[in-house]
Formats: sequence, C-alpha cells, structure tokens
Amino acid sequence: MYSFNNDYSEGAHPRILQALLESNLQQEIGYGQDSFTNKAVEILKEKLNCEEVDIHLLVGGTQTNLIAISAFLRPHEAAIAAASGHIFVHETGAIEATGHKVLTVDTENGKLTPSLIQHVLDEHTDEHMVKPKLVYISNSTEIGTIYSKSELKQLSEFCQKNQLLFYMDGARLGSALCAKDNDLTLSDLPRLLDAFYIGGTKNGALMGEALVIKKGSLKEDFRYHMKQKGAMLAKGRVLGIQFYELFKDTLFFELAEHANKLAERLTTALAEKGYRFLTQSSTNQVFPIVSNDKIIELQKNYQFNIWEKIDKEHSAIRLVTSWATREEEVEQFINDLK
Amino acid sequence: MYSFNNDYSEGAHPRILQALLESNLQQEIGYGQDSFTNKAVEILKEKLNCEEVDIHLLVGGTQTNLIAISAFLRPHEAAIAAASGHIFVHETGAIEATGHKVLTVDTENGKLTPSLIQHVLDEHTDEHMVKPKLVYISNSTEIGTIYSKSELKQLSEFCQKNQLLFYMDGARLGSALCAKDNDLTLSDLPRLLDAFYIGGTKNGALMGEALVIKKGSLKEDFRYHMKQKGAMLAKGRVLGIQFYELFKDTLFFELAEHANKLAERLTTALAEKGYRFLTQSSTNQVFPIVSNDKIIELQKNYQFNIWEKIDKEHSAIRLVTSWATREEEVEQFINDLK
Amino acid sequence: MYSFNNDYSEGAHPRILQALLESNLQQEIGYGQDSFTNKAVEILKEKLNCEEVDIHLLVGGTQTNLIAISAFLRPHEAAIAAASGHIFVHETGAIEATGHKVLTVDTENGKLTPSLIQHVLDEHTDEHMVKPKLVYISNSTEIGTIYSKSELKQLSEFCQKNQLLFYMDGARLGSALCAKDNDLTLSDLPRLLDAFYIGGTKNGALMGEALVIKKGSLKEDFRYHMKQKGAMLAKGRVLGIQFYELFKDTLFFELAEHANKLAERLTTALAEKGYRFLTQSSTNQVFPIVSNDKIIELQKNYQFNIWEKIDKEHSAIRLVTSWATREEEVEQFINDLK
Amino acid sequence: MYSFNNDYSEGAHPRILQALLESNLQQEIGYGQDSFTNKAVEILKEKLNCEEVDIHLLVGGTQTNLIAISAFLRPHEAAIAAASGHIFVHETGAIEATGHKVLTVDTENGKLTPSLIQHVLDEHTDEHMVKPKLVYISNSTEIGTIYSKSELKQLSEFCQKNQLLFYMDGARLGSALCAKDNDLTLSDLPRLLDAFYIGGTKNGALMGEALVIKKGSLKEDFRYHMKQKGAMLAKGRVLGIQFYELFKDTLFFELAEHANKLAERLTTALAEKGYRFLTQSSTNQVFPIVSNDKIIELQKNYQFNIWEKIDKEHSAIRLVTSWATREEEVEQFINDLK
Repeated sequence: MYSFNNDYSEGAHPRILQALLESNLQQEIGYGQDSFTNKAVEILKEKLNCEEVDIHLLVGGTQTNLIAISAFLRPHEAAIAAASGHIFVHETGAIEATGHKVLTVDTENGKLTPSLIQHVLDEHTDEHMVKPKLVYISNSTEIGTIYSKSELKQLSEFCQKNQLLFYMDGARLGSALCAKDNDLTLSDLPRLLDAFYIGGTKNGALMGEALVIKKGSLKEDFRYHMKQKGAMLAKGRVLGIQFYELFKDTLFFELAEHANKLAERLTTALAEKGYRFLTQSSTNQVFPIVSNDKIIELQKNYQFNIWEKIDKEHSAIRLVTSWATREEEVEQFINDLK
Repeated sequence: MYSFNNDYSEGAHPRILQALLESNLQQEIGYGQDSFTNKAVEILKEKLNCEEVDIHLLVGGTQTNLIAISAFLRPHEAAIAAASGHIFVHETGAIEATGHKVLTVDTENGKLTPSLIQHVLDEHTDEHMVKPKLVYISNSTEIGTIYSKSELKQLSEFCQKNQLLFYMDGARLGSALCAKDNDLTLSDLPRLLDAFYIGGTKNGALMGEALVIKKGSLKEDFRYHMKQKGAMLAKGRVLGIQFYELFKDTLFFELAEHANKLAERLTTALAEKGYRFLTQSSTNQVFPIVSNDKIIELQKNYQFNIWEKIDKEHSAIRLVTSWATREEEVEQFINDLK
Repeated sequence: MYSFNNDYSEGAHPRILQALLESNLQQEIGYGQDSFTNKAVEILKEKLNCEEVDIHLLVGGTQTNLIAISAFLRPHEAAIAAASGHIFVHETGAIEATGHKVLTVDTENGKLTPSLIQHVLDEHTDEHMVKPKLVYISNSTEIGTIYSKSELKQLSEFCQKNQLLFYMDGARLGSALCAKDNDLTLSDLPRLLDAFYIGGTKNGALMGEALVIKKGSLKEDFRYHMKQKGAMLAKGRVLGIQFYELFKDTLFFELAEHANKLAERLTTALAEKGYRFLTQSSTNQVFPIVSNDKIIELQKNYQFNIWEKIDKEHSAIRLVTSWATREEEVEQFINDLK
Repeated sequence: MYSFNNDYSEGAHPRILQALLESNLQQEIGYGQDSFTNKAVEILKEKLNCEEVDIHLLVGGTQTNLIAISAFLRPHEAAIAAASGHIFVHETGAIEATGHKVLTVDTENGKLTPSLIQHVLDEHTDEHMVKPKLVYISNSTEIGTIYSKSELKQLSEFCQKNQLLFYMDGARLGSALCAKDNDLTLSDLPRLLDAFYIGGTKNGALMGEALVIKKGSLKEDFRYHMKQKGAMLAKGRVLGIQFYELFKDTLFFELAEHANKLAERLTTALAEKGYRFLTQSSTNQVFPIVSNDKIIELQKNYQFNIWEKIDKEHSAIRLVTSWATREEEVEQFINDLK
C-alpha cells in the first residue's frame, strides 16, 4: 500500500533531522528567541531580499492563519476568500472562532480576482453587515492552481486602492514557486503582499510555517497574539533549526521541485492515457477524473483522496506528491492505471 | 555561561531523536491518527491503569490549557485558580481570550484547598457574576510545591460535591511524581481528576503534552476543538513517537528523577551554606533567597530567573534543573556560591 | 413624505404607552424579576398552551439571536440558515463574533427544507469542518414568505432525527401567524421548535422580543448569558409591561392583522395594475417590481427600500406596512402608481 | 414596604414619558439616525462644550462597557480596574467574554490612582502576559465615592504619558456631578477622558446611556460594533427622545440633585444617631453599618441590600435614593431607626 494522500505522510527530510541532532544539547533561550531562529529569520530576509519584514515561526497552517487574521482585524472586519479557501472549508471555523466572518465568492479555479472581490465590497456597504477588510488567497490553491505575477500584482493594487489587507496562505508555496508555469519569486512577495506564510510542514519539515509580515501596522505586538493562542513553542529552536536548514542553501526549492516533477509525471502519463482533470495543476496536487470501478481497483494498492463526484460513473481523485515520494511508486501507479 | 533558566533549554533526549530518525520514512495518516500516536495512547492508558480515558497529544502547555478549558466550559462559566496559576499570570490572557474569566485566590504555597475554593463559590451566587465551574491546579505548582494524595483526594471530593470540574496542569507532572515526598502515582490521577495533562516539553521531549480526559461528558467532539484552535498537527506522528518513547519503558520517570536529584543537590548545598528559600520545593525548581551582590556575581557565569524581590538587599532566584542538566555544572555552581 | 420603509418607523401602540404611564411609579425589582414580567410570562405560557417553557424578555432581534445561539451551541458547532437569513446577512457578523460559523444554503423563497439541510450535513462529516448543530429559520422570512404547519413539522422531525436544534426567529411572527394562508397557531410552536422568539419591536412595542425555550437542556443558566451579553435590562419592567399589554387580550394579533390587511391591499392593487412581484408574500412586506423611472417618481412622496435590481430597467422595491400604517396613505400610494 | 434597593425601581420621570407620548406617531428613520437622536447628540455636545466627540446612545451599562472596551482594545490588551469595579464583579464576565482580561488592584475607596496603575504596568512587561491598555474607572464609584477634578487630571496625564486609554463608567455620573463636594463639570470630561458614558437608566430614563468618544482613533466604525453586539435599537428614537428631554434644560441635574439631597438626609440623620459608614459617600448610595438585629427589624418595612459583613453583629447595608425617592419615606425610615 502506497499513499498519495498528502504531502505530510512521512517525517522530515533527513538533513533536517540531522540538524536537530547536531544542535541538540546546545542550551538556548526559549520561545523563539534562540540563535537558530535568529539565523533562520536572517536567511529568510535575505532570500526575500527585504529587511523590513517581521518573521515569526509558527507550528501549523491553521494556527498561522487564525493568529494572523485575528491579530490583523478589528472585531467587525471580515476576511474575503474563495469558497474553496482552506480557512472557509477545512479549519473547523477557526477564523469565526476568533470572531470574524469569512465572506466567500465562488471561483472556477480556486483563485480570487479584483472583480470577484469588488462584488463582495459592493454588497457590504453599511454597519448592518460586516466590513470586508482582508483578502485571503492560497498559493498554490487548494486545487493545485497558482497565481501569476501579474494576477498577484492586480490583486495587490486592488487591495491597496480599497484599503484591504492582502494575505497569502503559503502552505504549499514551495510547490507554487517551483511550478513550471510560475513567474513569481520569493522576493516578489513582500512587495505584493501585506503578510504571507512560507509553508514548511508540507515541504519537508517536521512542522513549521514562517509568517512574514510586511505592513508596518500589522507588526506591532505580534508575539502577544502568538502566546495568547498557544502558539509560542517553548523550544522555539525546533522551528528555527528547520527553517535555517531549509533556506541556508536551496533545500526548500529542491524538495518542492522533486514533488512537482513527480506530479507532472503523473499528469503527463494520465493525460496520455486519456484521463481528464478537474483542474489544471502544475503543482504537487493532481486531480484526475477516474471511473469508480478503477478507483476501487486502485484502492487495493494505493491511498488517495476521493475529491469530488463528477457523474454517476466518475469521480475526481486527488493525488499528492511530496519531497518524499518515490519515483518507482509513481511509475508503478502509472502502470497500474492500465 | 551555563543556564539554570528553565527545563527547556536543550532539545530532546537522544532516545527521542533516535526514535524520530528510525521511523522517519514510514508513511502514516495525518492529524494524530497514525500508528505511533495509537501506540502512545495505548501505553499511556496502561500506565494510567485506566481504559476509559480519551488521550490527545497536543503541542504545548498554554495550547492544552486553553483548548481544554474552553471546550469544557459554557460561555458563562469560569475557572478557579491560585493567583500564581500559570493560566492567570503567564499565558497572555489565553483563557480570557476564549471568553472565560479566571477567578483567583491568594495562596501561600501555590496550592488550592477546598476552603479557598469555597470562598470563591460563596462570593459567586447569581447571574450578575460568572459561575465558577472548573478548578485548575498545577502539579508541581509554579513555585515547585506538590500536592499529596490526600490533598488531591480532598479537592476531588469537594469538586464532585460542588459539581465543579477538576483539571490539572501537568507541565511538570514528571518532576512532581518523582519528588521524594510524593505519594501519588500516575494511576491515581484518572480516579481523582476529570482531566489533566502529562507534560512532555519540560521533561525531555522536543514538544508535546498528553491531555487525558476521564469525565465522559468532556470527551465528546474534542478533536473539533483541537482543530479549531490550530492544534492538530499534520504530522501528529511527531508527538506520538515521542510519547511512546517516553512511556514504553521508564524513560519519562528517569528523566524527571535526574532533574529532581540535581535540584535536591542544589537545595541541600544551599541550605548547608545558610541560604533560605522562598518555597519548600522537592521538585526541579528551587527558589533560594540570595543577596543582590551575589546575584550579580553569579550572573557572570550563570543564567537564571530573578523571581521576586524579598527586601532591599535580597531577591529570590529560580534555579531550574532538567533531564539535561549536567552534574558538574551543578557542582561548579555550588562551588561558586562560596 | 410617507414611509413604507419598515415596521418600526413609529413609537409604540398607544395602549402600550398608556400601560407604561399607569405603572410608572410602582416600585419593582430589577432585571426582569418584576411583577409585570412575571405576568407577561404567565400570559404567554397560557397563549402558548405550554407550561414547560422558559420565557425571557430581551430588547432586540439581533441581541436575541446572538444570545440564544451562542448559549445553545458549543464552540465547534454551527448554525444552518438560508443565505437570505437575517443572522447571515444583516447582523454584522453577530453570530460569528460569538465564535460560531453560519452555514448557508441558497433557497428560492427564503425557506429551509429538510433536503437543503441534509446537503449541509452531507458536506460536514469530520472534525476538519464545523459541526452543523442548529437550524435557524425566520417566520415570516426576510422576503415575506411563511412556513406552513406541515413544512414546520417536517423540519422539526428532521431536526429531531438528526440531533439538530431547531430555532425560529420570530421578529415578524405576528404577521406570519395572521397571514391569510397561515395554518399555524402560537400553541403549535412549542411542540415544533426547541426555541423561538415572538417579536414585539416590529409589532407595536417600543422594543422587545420574547424568547421561548422549550428544550430542557437549553434552559439552564440562561439568565447568565443575558447578563454577560449586556441584555439584562435594569428596568426589566419596561419589557414586561409591554408584553403583558400585547398579550393580555388580542392586541398583538390585531396589530399584525392591520399590517397584513394593508399589505394585502397594496398587493391586490399592484397586481391589478399589472405589477409582478419578487416573492409571494401574504405578510406585511411586499416586493413589487417597478420600473426605475417610476421609482424615482414615487420617491418624491414616499420612502421605501430598493431591494434588488431585476434588469436594466426594473428593480424590486420593498413596501412594509405596520400596526401604525394609515389606510389613507396606502390608498394615496396606490393612486400615485397610475 | 418601601425600597431603597436601587435607583431603578420605578419607571421614568413623567416628563420623559410625556415626550415619548407626544412624539409617538411621528415617522422616523431607525437605528439611531432619527431626528430625536440627532437633537439629543447636539444638545449633549453643547453641554459638553465640545464638538469633536462622537456620541452613541446605548441601552444599558454592561452593554456600553462591553462594546466600548472590546471596540477599543486589540485582542491581547487588557483593562485595569479597581477590584470593586463593576466590569470585574457584576457583569458576568462580559469583558472577558469579548476576549479581554480585566486586571485589578485593591483600593480603599473604589478609586484608582496613578501609583496603583503603575503597579500593574510594572508587573506586565512582556508578551507572556497581557498588555494593560485601558484604565476603567467609575464615577461615582460602586461604593458611592467620587473623583475630584485634580484626581481625574492626574489619572488623565498618567494615562497619556503611558499610552493608556482612559475610560469612565458614568452609570451614576449625574449623582457624582451633583455631589456637594464635586468640582467637576460635564464639560471637563471630554478634556480628561478618551471615552465615557453618561448614565440615563439610573437617573430618570426608562433606559439608556450616552457613550461619548473623544479620542479620534476610537471613533472609527463604532456603529458596526453596536450592531454586532445587538445594541442598535430599531426604534433608536426611544433613546434619543429621552436624552433630549433630560438635557434640553436641566432635568438631568435636577433629578440627580433630588437623589443626592435625600441620600444626604439619610447620612446626616444616621450619623446623628451614631451610625458609622462603610464609605464616605456624598452621592446617592449610602452604606451605614447596622446591627444585624436592626437589619431584621428594618426589613419588615424596607427593601435594601446587605452589602458586606462587618463583624459578627454588624453588617453594612446599602441605601440607594433616586429621582423618584419620596421624602416622606426617607423621614419614615429615619424615624424607624430609633
């Protein structure tokens, strides 16, 4: 049985475990003020080519989203997201639990556009409704698509013009930035976004997300919010060591490239065999449409998600590759598709 | 420079890192439903000698406290804690941020008693005030003291009689259970408490606390609360592997004993030299009262917390030992006290 | 200028003011425990033909909804509402501000059905999503439609079967119960619903809503929630006097009938003139589709809401009648339509 | 049986009811945007001698406190109050329910001072604790004492220097401003405070508090918060009419003076008879210390609060006078004390 269920089925990349081992008995200050976290923050600022950001290392994606969004918004302000957005669907109402509504719009490909957001603004005009204030996007999205630099720029300008905060969930940012049709770089992001996070959990770390805050007014007292939500790790070093290891050279990108390459192999092979896809994905999530009979057959040897019913006979499944996915298993899967 | 600042200055006990290494590439289901977490839960139930508990592995102490307490209480209900209680002082209002007041009473030694709690109940009698509902204690307490079995039994009976939930913060439970004057065992706890957690972070794990829920009505849907508060680790295995390693034999207790032994060595040596103490501690936190001049001298070679001003010339300092504290550094410190 | 803007443009029915005057200097206990509130509660129980309900008098609709729903739900539980539901659209995220998500379904006529709710249940199956727990309906709905007894019965049975709480917003319950095609009576409601409120503000009171709680487990400690949300009026008598006056005979129903009669007069006259309607309403809100030119002309003498754009040339407007609407103004309006 | 229980035992001053009657059938816009509210706001600005304030009319004191404080603070910020402060003791955790801790200090007379606040600031120095941000005082206090202009000035300067928001609960502001030893005027308040409210409920209105916001940054979007917390009255006119009536001439002050005069009569007579007092009050709450036997005797004919046990034989009781208290009842009470 091999799992294409997700990109967090294994532990961490061996280099990360090695870094934890080597530093293990060094005494450090707690709560994210250790030397490793400092080094991780420095190297990230360098890669972002931006000194004027605050960077905080957090444990997971839902945690990062809920702390950032609740810290950034006043009580009557709301987030705008795609109806497929992770904060709306798969975080057990974490944002609402902090008091904030998530306003949604339907999208074709999981991506927001200025006109979709404008529609929300048009409908929220007085104090009997919440005030839309923060635009939430994911890159790559929950269905594998990515934003181009020009799309992100348009959104950024729209947000600025409308005094909206622009926030990006980067749980799978590595895969997005390494997609073959991507034209964004890490250093574009602080110029386009008010805040975003760089996902470690789904790209080779044991756990960890690096939240980057660019907009000055959002930076103040952020560590208070982390502590209040139970997100300040006593041994903050564990996150610092991992992010330093991922970014001190090109490991972060190599891992994402590996995942993307195997996803592309799946896509190509499936397309050749005549399979259609739910979405056009160039990242590490692939959504082929498969007959229900075939699904039952595949489930004997593989784990994967059944994403969506297409018609009586077919469903879209989700295949996820990661830094740890083995090429031979991908080939075997392709073979088994016959 | 050697640090007696706290019990989380180093990484994890080497056996824990080894366990992470060995299991690293095994594919597992996410979110705490992996085989390692299952094994950890089974071994914990065995050690607790109790099958009718739910056990959830969480990342940190503040996180565990805030999720448990907010899941257990209705909106108008409040927790009762010692004024020195961690949830009241050092968690940035995490409990209040979930909507619940923390009612406090002053104590001499960080420990609650039935009569102290009764005083709170007497003062909260109608709907113009919150309804006291959950009793929060820490064992060991924030100032190193511990509860005896008979004290815990009295509290337990008092809570039951008054329909109060009884919850214990066990961030330093290992040290408490290994204190020389302790008469509690792990298996006593599910009979005395409605819920409690067994702290890993401060006893040799990279991170992790095991929340044990005994009372049936508190168990329902608990995983929803974990997810909603951002506490459901994608790679839940990381917690499962660590707790299994700590409890598959006696490692958890050995680590606490090591910390206690060195704390006792400090206590004995300091007492011999005529130092007085802020509190009688038999656990891994020691609070000697030291002259301010001596403190400045010691700070040249040691890190520790200045806990409380005693008089113009003296302060209580906090010395914390851990599984990783080295005997020779303790001896050197004792030497340097002369 | 005459206003058809809403049903709260005037003060209170003269009999209510008279009752306030007559009782004014009588000393009473505060916070809803006065003799007038007691009498109001007794007469309401009589009219509901049900002794086993708790009744609380609150100030307004949003306040009642937010206190009831947040008192009834645990943190991870969500309400289900029509996408046009007042709690979702026009309460500034009041429910979310208490931590709860509102899940919505699109409806044709503002009304929920078992199959619409089932769809929500089917999509929320694990702890990564909120748990749907309370069904929120409005009767009459936000667009003037009403539930029949059989529709309500089906919903009630569905909720019971699926362990869902069934709650009705009765801001305009008077108008619903007096609609000519209504077959519900006040005394049907406690048998069908777990909780609901009887709206006073929009039916002749200065302010006030009577929350009726039938389900036993929802009753406990409710006054704590009222106080905590700032809804316990010091001079609770003001609500008690009003509700007693409305229900001690048939005033409540007479006022609603007056409003409905004039709404029906508008509907009939408009239909005769060939106007179409956005919704089929037999209550005190009418939604004719009017040309934009005509709207501009009418606005010279009348205030009303422009509800929705229909096409380039037409919009639906909302005309609301109330206990205070004058027949001659309705006739004048009809005349002015020519 | 005559009640000295509180200052909200009766309805409203007859002039207020008369004003409600006279305006009753005038059509008005809802939600506090009616012409009466506008007039009330204008007259209040005049009396405050300050145009640069925003004024919002709310229904009750707890409601006003919780909306103001939760709108003014970010999630990690806390209020500082006297331990006897209404928000800490008697609002069922309303502030905590919005997520904010209330930090308290013990006081002798219910009043905060710069040095008491400084003590709180000194203890809250990093992100492991909440950030003290808003100073809450009551004038008159919960135990009848008042702030002098110089005391308020010192607090105001201290707050400004320490970037603290300064907020005053004026539930009994009328009585405070009319106390014989008071040297504050209404127009002093906007210069000294960032926000405060002028209590109507306890000074002759059916209900209603006028929140005055002076500090610019606190004004933005305030109506959203009102709506979100269920505090935006559909018939906002009811509050507007009352506040206009109270302030269009000197009614507000006359009512408070009446209450104070009778309270002073009680104080003088009790002192003459040798009674001691729990606090020195020149406002409408008097706290004589009475033998338990005498209390039982008095309870045959009078209602009042037993405030605090003094010793085995004595308790402090609370006698409250109001605009509606009758002189003959006060004299009878004095007689009955013999």
